[in-house]
Amino acid sequence: MSIRTVSNVVSDYPYVADDTRARVQAAIDRLGYRPNLLARSLKQGRSHVIALVVPELDVPYFAELARLIIAEGRERGYLVMIDHTDGDKNLERELILQNARPMNFDGVILSPLALSGADLSERPPGAPILLLGEKSFDSLADHVAIDNVAAADEATTHLIDIGRSRIAAIGVQPSGYDTAKLRLKGFRRAHRRAGIPVDRSLLMTATRFHRTDGAEAMRQLLARPDRPDAVFCFNDLLALGAMRTVLAAGLRVPEDVAIVGFDDIEDGRFSTPTLTTISPDKQLIARQAIEQILTRISKSDDAAPIEIRAPFRLAIRESTAGIPCDGGARHQADRPASRPTRSDSQP
Amino acid sequence: MSIRTVSNVVSDYPYVADDTRARVQAAIDRLGYRPNLLARSLKQGRSHVIALVVPELDVPYFAELARLIIAEGRERGYLVMIDHTDGDKNLERELILQNARPMNFDGVILSPLALSGADLSERPPGAPILLLGEKSFDSLADHVAIDNVAAADEATTHLIDIGRSRIAAIGVQPSGYDTAKLRLKGFRRAHRRAGIPVDRSLLMTATRFHRTDGAEAMRQLLARPDRPDAVFCFNDLLALGAMRTVLAAGLRVPEDVAIVGFDDIEDGRFSTPTLTTISPDKQLIARQAIEQILTRISKSDDAAPIEIRAPFRLAIRESTAGIPCDGGARHQADRPASRPTRSDSQP
Repeated sequence: MSIRTVSNVVSDYPYVADDTRARVQAAIDRLGYRPNLLARSLKQGRSHVIALVVPELDVPYFAELARLIIAEGRERGYLVMIDHTDGDKNLERELILQNARPMNFDGVILSPLALSGADLSERPPGAPILLLGEKSFDSLADHVAIDNVAAADEATTHLIDIGRSRIAAIGVQPSGYDTAKLRLKGFRRAHRRAGIPVDRSLLMTATRFHRTDGAEAMRQLLARPDRPDAVFCFNDLLALGAMRTVLAAGLRVPEDVAIVGFDDIEDGRFSTPTLTTISPDKQLIARQAIEQILTRISKSDDAAPIEIRAPFRLAIRESTAGIPCDGGARHQADRPASRPTRSDSQP
Repeated sequence: MSIRTVSNVVSDYPYVADDTRARVQAAIDRLGYRPNLLARSLKQGRSHVIALVVPELDVPYFAELARLIIAEGRERGYLVMIDHTDGDKNLERELILQNARPMNFDGVILSPLALSGADLSERPPGAPILLLGEKSFDSLADHVAIDNVAAADEATTHLIDIGRSRIAAIGVQPSGYDTAKLRLKGFRRAHRRAGIPVDRSLLMTATRFHRTDGAEAMRQLLARPDRPDAVFCFNDLLALGAMRTVLAAGLRVPEDVAIVGFDDIEDGRFSTPTLTTISPDKQLIARQAIEQILTRISKSDDAAPIEIRAPFRLAIRESTAGIPCDGGARHQADRPASRPTRSDSQP
């Protein structure tokens, strides 16, 4: 039996007699032969592996999204491996410049925190990348995100609609962090439309978007003589931390302080009270991200980057409306969802 | 400038004049030259990448552990990439047999759900693997875990100590899932020692360890005329789901039903009431896992697999004791921690 015959069997080359194939396979099984996968992927020039890089793996929004992206990749024969950067600008840079990675990824899906447009424009040609989330890069790469300004506006308008007028915001961040900037913009727009002035002393910064930051910001708000009657938190973790502080102080949610979050993580569907939140369509975001990066990988073209708008909806629960809600129910349509739109960006 | 000179610069070969190095580097930067990383790792035989494979990335315990393992790996110059299997036995098998992976991992850290000892003994020699979690494989591979029987015993004993006698367990699973089996064993042992019979009708199965499974099991328990006065849930997600059901039914935690979880995820430190739980020392588990697999990788030896016991403690919070607890406080020593032990297993 020649080496060529073995090679043909291993490579699934079609012109091999069935009994020959069976004998070779039996020998392979017996000897525990494994083709050198690294060498094979080197030869083929494709690894069929995509890296998904998120700022924080233990932020449930990213973990939930990662699960969906892994599943979408697997359906299409791609392995998606996860890394996280902790929002470290150097790690994000190394990643897109691909000079610190010993792996040969076919593409990278990145949810950047600290990366700048200048960093992004340095990346080498022919390295497919797709960006997730709120940082806007003026069409430097394919990008999937919801309309954060519209979502924050809708969340804030809901608080105004239920009669609240002293509304705090938790999650304001130093310039450079676009997520916070866009959500604050929507918060202000809702106030402006309703003719309610924004009290700047109710705009609370948060270093990170964790429960502990929300709890701390809420402690400061409750210490004031004129505490707010509602709070819009820039993510659900901040909201769940803030809720804990309000309840531990003996106040009621939503009667004394109504709370809205952002992300619709599972935690908020099982908290007491359940959490009203902006619910991005994560399933669709995952599918759009995988489909678009595979398009880039297969075409290797230099077509202009595209901007994909994913839909979201406001999920109204007990923390604002006192409406009992089955925690297990997913994606109930409390309000009509905004429509997905897809537009080619102008380069 | 010769190809050899360029190669020397790229490879960080020491005997290159500084100005030559600078000129080559400038050319590299200008041309966007990237060394073929895949070819390089092929030549060196090491990728410096470790795969961490968990059953479910969006179960907070695994996400929190993954963050710690990534950090420990990074400190030692290793990239840790994450994948999850959803507990799929075929994916777990493919992974340890390394015949479905196009990547060249130096080692694999695996938290298996469905894998059997027989599967594990099939793996090829020289593929470093470390197992996390509760499945016991009779010393087929290095293994880091806490003593689950002792931990479940301590959690159950705590419920007995606060005067509860009708204690339910949520998370019982069909045979093959060692996590549930070991925790049930500890639950029974605590009852036996206290001379309290276990009511088998209070042993609730759970298909998965998610909030929704805990909520459903609790609904069934509350529908009984003789409902339990306490429940030991085999993880925190089950406990948080069960807590939601109890509170939504208008009952009080812990007065009517006391609840203990397992894992000490961040959610339970911010829930209302906060959750009493078994707290494994995740930081130490992460360090032990990385150190041990790097030892295997560097030595490539066939020394007998070792069994590493990580410490845990019972964190007593409001869901059993009504003790107010600062949700943000991490690792407060409610009880003396059990001591870490490390023993070479008998092959």
